[in-house]
Amino acid sequence: MKLFKEAGGNCLATYIPWLIHEPTEGHFKFGGKTGTHDVEGFLETAAEEGLYVIARPGPYQYSELLYDGLPRWLCENYPELHAHNIKGKMIRQSSISYLHPLFLEKVERWFAAICPLLSRWTVSKGGPLAFTQFDNEMGGIHIWFGSLDYNAKTLGLSDPMGRFPKFLENRYREISRLNKLYETTFADFASVLPPVPLPTSRLAEIRRMKDFFNFYQSMLAEYANILCSLMQQYGIDTPFVHNSAGPSMNAWFKPMVDSIRYPFILGSDHYYTLGQEWGQNNPTPQHATQIFTSMEMLRVMGMPPTVFELPGGSLSDWPPITPHDAKACYLMNIAFGMKASNFYIFTGGPNIPGTGTTSDIYDYGAAIGPRGEIRPLYKIQKDLGLFLKKNSWLVEAEHETGVRVGLDFDMPIAENYGWEARGELAITPADSWRFIHRGILSTAFCASLSPTFVDLSKESWMEDLGTPLIVVTSAVMARPIQEQLVRFLKNGGRLLLLPVMPTHDENLEPCTVLSDHLNGVITVRNHSQFTRVTVAGVANVYMNGEVFFLENLPSDAKIVGIDEISGRTLAAQWKPKDGGEVLIMGFRWLHAKREHELMLISLVKNLGFKAKVICSNPNIWVTLRTTGKQSALFLMNLLSAPMETRVKCRPAWSKKMIDTKNHKLEPMSVKVILLSENHKLRYGL
Amino acid sequence: MKLFKEAGGNCLATYIPWLIHEPTEGHFKFGGKTGTHDVEGFLETAAEEGLYVIARPGPYQYSELLYDGLPRWLCENYPELHAHNIKGKMIRQSSISYLHPLFLEKVERWFAAICPLLSRWTVSKGGPLAFTQFDNEMGGIHIWFGSLDYNAKTLGLSDPMGRFPKFLENRYREISRLNKLYETTFADFASVLPPVPLPTSRLAEIRRMKDFFNFYQSMLAEYANILCSLMQQYGIDTPFVHNSAGPSMNAWFKPMVDSIRYPFILGSDHYYTLGQEWGQNNPTPQHATQIFTSMEMLRVMGMPPTVFELPGGSLSDWPPITPHDAKACYLMNIAFGMKASNFYIFTGGPNIPGTGTTSDIYDYGAAIGPRGEIRPLYKIQKDLGLFLKKNSWLVEAEHETGVRVGLDFDMPIAENYGWEARGELAITPADSWRFIHRGILSTAFCASLSPTFVDLSKESWMEDLGTPLIVVTSAVMARPIQEQLVRFLKNGGRLLLLPVMPTHDENLEPCTVLSDHLNGVITVRNHSQFTRVTVAGVANVYMNGEVFFLENLPSDAKIVGIDEISGRTLAAQWKPKDGGEVLIMGFRWLHAKREHELMLISLVKNLGFKAKVICSNPNIWVTLRTTGKQSALFLMNLLSAPMETRVKCRPAWSKKMIDTKNHKLEPMSVKVILLSENHKLRYGL
Repeated sequence: MKLFKEAGGNCLATYIPWLIHEPTEGHFKFGGKTGTHDVEGFLETAAEEGLYVIARPGPYQYSELLYDGLPRWLCENYPELHAHNIKGKMIRQSSISYLHPLFLEKVERWFAAICPLLSRWTVSKGGPLAFTQFDNEMGGIHIWFGSLDYNAKTLGLSDPMGRFPKFLENRYREISRLNKLYETTFADFASVLPPVPLPTSRLAEIRRMKDFFNFYQSMLAEYANILCSLMQQYGIDTPFVHNSAGPSMNAWFKPMVDSIRYPFILGSDHYYTLGQEWGQNNPTPQHATQIFTSMEMLRVMGMPPTVFELPGGSLSDWPPITPHDAKACYLMNIAFGMKASNFYIFTGGPNIPGTGTTSDIYDYGAAIGPRGEIRPLYKIQKDLGLFLKKNSWLVEAEHETGVRVGLDFDMPIAENYGWEARGELAITPADSWRFIHRGILSTAFCASLSPTFVDLSKESWMEDLGTPLIVVTSAVMARPIQEQLVRFLKNGGRLLLLPVMPTHDENLEPCTVLSDHLNGVITVRNHSQFTRVTVAGVANVYMNGEVFFLENLPSDAKIVGIDEISGRTLAAQWKPKDGGEVLIMGFRWLHAKREHELMLISLVKNLGFKAKVICSNPNIWVTLRTTGKQSALFLMNLLSAPMETRVKCRPAWSKKMIDTKNHKLEPMSVKVILLSENHKLRYGL
Repeated sequence: MKLFKEAGGNCLATYIPWLIHEPTEGHFKFGGKTGTHDVEGFLETAAEEGLYVIARPGPYQYSELLYDGLPRWLCENYPELHAHNIKGKMIRQSSISYLHPLFLEKVERWFAAICPLLSRWTVSKGGPLAFTQFDNEMGGIHIWFGSLDYNAKTLGLSDPMGRFPKFLENRYREISRLNKLYETTFADFASVLPPVPLPTSRLAEIRRMKDFFNFYQSMLAEYANILCSLMQQYGIDTPFVHNSAGPSMNAWFKPMVDSIRYPFILGSDHYYTLGQEWGQNNPTPQHATQIFTSMEMLRVMGMPPTVFELPGGSLSDWPPITPHDAKACYLMNIAFGMKASNFYIFTGGPNIPGTGTTSDIYDYGAAIGPRGEIRPLYKIQKDLGLFLKKNSWLVEAEHETGVRVGLDFDMPIAENYGWEARGELAITPADSWRFIHRGILSTAFCASLSPTFVDLSKESWMEDLGTPLIVVTSAVMARPIQEQLVRFLKNGGRLLLLPVMPTHDENLEPCTVLSDHLNGVITVRNHSQFTRVTVAGVANVYMNGEVFFLENLPSDAKIVGIDEISGRTLAAQWKPKDGGEVLIMGFRWLHAKREHELMLISLVKNLGFKAKVICSNPNIWVTLRTTGKQSALFLMNLLSAPMETRVKCRPAWSKKMIDTKNHKLEPMSVKVILLSENHKLRYGL
């Protein structure tokens, strides 16, 4: 704790594993001389050190404990609690069905034991306990082992008052409506079976899978509310927190965020290596677009973007988490708007004998080793902690926006429910979600466009009519979002729409509200093997991806992009009669070329984009974060080669571009430049 | 050419695209003032500059040309030539069925035009033409677009003398034997249909798919022989070369190498980035194990490992090929035994109008830009070229072997024919091929074990009884290889066998020759969710992968590894009565832990391993290459963080370990240390 404080830390997180505190059913073990069970002793010490605490009493812990931190007796003696796959088979012994009533009963008994102890130490009583986490990386315990949960008892199948039947009833009201969309003949909601999760392109099947996924999301939200309610009942009066398992799961918790009845922060866990099979083994640009998206999703959900598990080591020694890479990772997270973070883990230590799945020592390559040894990573964490402490204004700073990218929370979940083929649709939401990361955002960062996200389902972003809005579409766009975009245009907004015109609504029923407003323009896929594209005066922008041609353009539309081989139009811009300006482009790409940058810059300039940052080296990604008359410019070299660049920027408080001159960046490094009104530059880290 | 020579180059490769030389069928275009069609002028200039040339007259070129370099009239006017998928549909307009008689007729006419021109310039006539390449990255044009080729005419389906029926007849002799293995009732070989390529675990289906893949390999070999024959017929008297499209395709050409009747070098293309979707965007350790395996596969096929396309840029600007990373890549290839290389591409230039798929300028980020501009990459290539010229002894140097890894050429192709599930088998060859890369080799390089490959189907490696042999098995091992390993043991060899005992032969029929020799030992999969493993005194080696328990061990076997939870044996060592020593371990892992290194070192030490290299930092991978009394030590930092290490080595010519002291390595860099008998160290690059 002393080392943590010295490193600038102010809030510890600690698991309180159910596994060790209720080793035998109904017999609780707290306190004691060894310290391993002495929760209150830990809180007392934290209080003495002046540190806040996040308590993580579960039910789940994970953290490489046997049974993922659940008591063995629970997993072994109550098989009815196991989560099931669609075939009714157990997923895995320690993967439990969250809302099974018997499980919630056991959880209540556990909370009834632990929460009163914790409640004596909350901030409201002058104690250190600032936040309480419910569960851990919810949903992971199911999906990582192959399936969502189909436990029939939990779902309430066949029961008119059961969870799944009621969910469907709330959504469809009449069974005939469901049958029409599902192309089925169910007699009533209680008879509806969950869909078999198989890759498909049949709309009727996709509707069922999407509904089941939404239902699963609603179960996570319900579970969260129950856990909070139980903890409050047993005395916890802190705000609650939960950690999404990572960027790709943040959207799972949107219904939870929208429905939770308790003070709550949703954060995310941001690992870059836990082994060779992990997506990225380094904080690379591909990782960066994930982290950026994660942070922005949390922000537009109204959360202070918080990383509850920032890699403070890794389960693996190899590929290695080096202090050098970790530093780049931490600064990248700050560059993208992280407001708070916890290292997983700050210090290693012994596992309580017989509880670890990996080893008796839980090392994790943490900054502080299991025998208290201080490792090189500690210096990195300390430098960072002291820098953040010194520049506490950074927590207020916000990303300076050059362009906005529309976020549709239906998009990120599409890849989770088995929608793999397009069938009759032009392009799936999962395709477009990938395009956002590997096309739009990668190009935007190489082009220094300063992108940020807006939640298309909300109204607030509509106020800003000056900053262009990029909306990445798929064949599917909810009717309310289509209507919202029409309103945005009518208000005078400037919109870049790509790569297709939506043709279906949130129920996958035909819906062309947006197209109807835009002269009935449609997008038609190019099937030729050979394509050569010029857009906005930039030739040869096609190298990969996909082209769609525009039809039904209004006569006053300006042609912005064509396929040189067929001569057909793929991009056009015009001002609809009742307001605003729209640029539609039928092109989807993976960022690969300088031409992609030039193209996107031209397109957004056509819509009034004004540069916040000008960076001479496209391999250096930049963000500019400002509050009041202070700014921080983050220059990110997320590659393995050294780089040089010249960077200019215009913070909101500055009337002119500030030239920060030339910079050398080591491989995998982030440079922070602090700016204030007198234009003096200071180097942060 | 002058710049290439100055950079140490001695041999140019050039495409000669059919597309541009026979623009209209039967009308050939050579020479001319623009230079674009003047093949002989090019050769003359090369001769004047004293450079050798590799001619690449196709038929295919790829290289981002329209129709992949084939004439448009060929692809458009002769639909019968198209390669077909299993449903009889064209794969893609420019994907041709190699052995279609009409295609070979058109190819002959093209070769009859171009080869006589080339033949005037071969080395035997005092000219520069040293090698002629047939086709380009054979097979890619089919598989990358979704399918092997099932063109019925080419396959000769229904024809008793057809290619596919004859192939099957040669393999099975009696249709009844085929029917028994396929579980079918075909009347004769002519009636046998190619299998539908679907993922399966049914042995009968896998046999069919494996046969079809082997047949496809035989077509590649036949195509190669025909192309060489035609070129010789029209005057080419150089050796021939061909470039495998990359490490994962080298094994496709084993039958070609075994059956080709002409002087021939098979090489491979070694890209690390052509876009975001590419496997590795950097020369990382994961890329390195691929490159190492590729080089070793070529070597054990009897080839001087040659990289016909070493990245001299990339199709993409992003992720970038930086000179810094390229240097690490080039040196890594040399560290792993590259004997010759060609940059793809050395210089950009204009495409002949109307022939490029991407752009009128073919830039590729090459060292020499399309307008002759010299880019930073050139300096890297020049430094390398001059270093290699100065140290030409390196071409004779061979990797100093600490342990040998057995290579079964049936293993790398298993992932190519749809074998995805195990079914009744313990583990598939595709699983084991992955284990070789991400388990054995990664651990071996982190542990400085100096691994090399041997071809298990050959005899030569059997002479060395001192160096331990690691054989990564799957459930399937050809009977001759099982017999060979028994002989190796009887001769006194030392064998580490993992992770399972083979149960089936090359026809997927039961075969336990190896197990029978080893007391009938069998391996049984562990199904417990929790496993804790100690091997060779190293605790906690299990973190991922899979454990198999050993049964039927001889009474004198020494238990080397156990699962602490079940108490069951997973590794044991003994000396079979009739000779040799065997250590069997039922454990497969992805390299992740220091413990994995300690375990593997202990195991091979048990079998007589003697260290060639001792490197204090496991993140630095090392090879030691020696000829006579000279050696080069390659220290590879393939990570994005700077590293330090101390390295000792014992080349064959040295009686004692040489301490090369401490070294600092920049991120993504390879340091070359030259050693000779007087123990003086020199730094190479």
